[in-house]
Amino acid sequence: MAKYNICLDIGGTKVFGAVFNSRKEIIARIKRKTKEDGESSDNVEDVIIRSVEELIKEAGIKKSEINAISAGAPGVIDQDKGIVLFSPNLPWKNYNIKKPIEDKFGAPFHIGNDVNLGVLGEYKYGVAKGCKNVVGLFVGTGMGGGLILDGKLYTGNQFKAAEYGHMILDPEGPLCNCGQRGCLEAFSSKQGMSGYIKQQVSRGRKTMMEDAITGSTFKAKALKKALAAGDEVAIEAVDRACHYLAIASGNLVNTFSPEIVVYGGGVIEANGDYFLERILKEVDRYCMPSIRDTVKFANAALGDDSIVYGALSLI
Amino acid sequence: MAKYNICLDIGGTKVFGAVFNSRKEIIARIKRKTKEDGESSDNVEDVIIRSVEELIKEAGIKKSEINAISAGAPGVIDQDKGIVLFSPNLPWKNYNIKKPIEDKFGAPFHIGNDVNLGVLGEYKYGVAKGCKNVVGLFVGTGMGGGLILDGKLYTGNQFKAAEYGHMILDPEGPLCNCGQRGCLEAFSSKQGMSGYIKQQVSRGRKTMMEDAITGSTFKAKALKKALAAGDEVAIEAVDRACHYLAIASGNLVNTFSPEIVVYGGGVIEANGDYFLERILKEVDRYCMPSIRDTVKFANAALGDDSIVYGALSLI
Repeated sequence: MAKYNICLDIGGTKVFGAVFNSRKEIIARIKRKTKEDGESSDNVEDVIIRSVEELIKEAGIKKSEINAISAGAPGVIDQDKGIVLFSPNLPWKNYNIKKPIEDKFGAPFHIGNDVNLGVLGEYKYGVAKGCKNVVGLFVGTGMGGGLILDGKLYTGNQFKAAEYGHMILDPEGPLCNCGQRGCLEAFSSKQGMSGYIKQQVSRGRKTMMEDAITGSTFKAKALKKALAAGDEVAIEAVDRACHYLAIASGNLVNTFSPEIVVYGGGVIEANGDYFLERILKEVDRYCMPSIRDTVKFANAALGDDSIVYGALSLI
Repeated sequence: MAKYNICLDIGGTKVFGAVFNSRKEIIARIKRKTKEDGESSDNVEDVIIRSVEELIKEAGIKKSEINAISAGAPGVIDQDKGIVLFSPNLPWKNYNIKKPIEDKFGAPFHIGNDVNLGVLGEYKYGVAKGCKNVVGLFVGTGMGGGLILDGKLYTGNQFKAAEYGHMILDPEGPLCNCGQRGCLEAFSSKQGMSGYIKQQVSRGRKTMMEDAITGSTFKAKALKKALAAGDEVAIEAVDRACHYLAIASGNLVNTFSPEIVVYGGGVIEANGDYFLERILKEVDRYCMPSIRDTVKFANAALGDDSIVYGALSLI
């Protein structure tokens, strides 16, 4: 009686997991760190196996009741073969994880890029349901992209598409992690906002965000708190992030003529209304009027579940 | 014996036409102005009808031997229904031309956006043959785009996609026809180059291009002559055009991970080697390295025939 699907969202630091019943309802969840004591994230198998085992226990189901397992993970992933070709935040390269997981649990295993799956999730079950062409922008530590075109997840040549986080919007702009200047990510991701905030701090300005930044990132909830408190530097960083998100959205709208642009990811999950209001104030200027008429802009509806729902769609 | 296809490329000022035999060879051609004496381009039917009649005569075939007729035209075109929804350079709006042409010649008629068809032509018969994902950039008076994704022409919601000529690359850049600043078109089209050249002339600099510019455009061959003569202002205008073409190409490569980026249109037809060399010098900087590895950059192979070949592919 294979009637449950187990779906994972594997991040650089944590794993979300859910067990879906045959009515596509979540009957159990877990959230855990990617690296546990004595566990190395070098071995994606361990991470997945432990998470699946926990979920089986949590849901009180039997291994034989699993219909399929699927996961979203950061990086370039060969969805057809189940190979993680390259992952920026996890040390996996040309890693075929399909076979070991299938052998272990005796169920089919699927894997895809996390943001691609987040957009797929919103398309199948969330805010983009019923649309045919969807552009997704996920704001987190970096800036992720995902595309549904003509009703299908678009992955391009060798599964490397939708990297418009590295769209250059100002050749003289701030340096990005990728080595270029003025990418969307360098303005609008957590890293981009952190860069702006640090610069202001170095100029002697005070901000609640100073203590919130660790390395080049921060928790999205700290930003929410700073915005609510009227923290000037935080507001400026977000205004600048939204300005460039609006330009990038216009460029993508003119390129794709989608039915919808969806904003998601941790920053949006915590601060979505604040961001969307500012993006909408500007975005009309950057879209061709005739194309603007037929596109809407919205925040992801599934929140932290976008990716597990996308993973469910792979099954 | 319906064995010939008649294919047209309808521009704002001229029409190219070709008759293809069943082996897809061109057996007759015409080239004429869009507006002839006493003929108004308000009436696209007249333009198409006259062109088809001339081609029938030129090829020495009978009306009954026509298998199908097709055309590429500028603007937003509902390819499925044969309606020109909007055309920036031709005064046609929500114009259904399928039925009148089919009634007149008793053969199926198809129509699509000219640059879309140019890219489709290169994909089916030209430099992009065998690729699955193709990004086309056509440099003319404006800047046109066309996309083949997963082996199919991508037209987006309501046939309005691929307007990345209006991708903003510098929010403080020169004013574009579309009302925005710093679009690719404002730097790299004939209009963009003309703007730069005029600015230099107004600063007292000498250039062969001064006399070549009419309104805000020029003939691509005049540019070729100026480049060959080492005209400094012309060289600067082209260097600037290629710089922004390289940035835009990088942005598009990161977005689509295509197998090939194809440059076409009148400016490239006349000056392609000169442009491509300069684009290639810079473009690596703007592509994510892993994506750059699997994309090539090339000029259109079919020259002025790209669009008629694309129109043939619609049949």
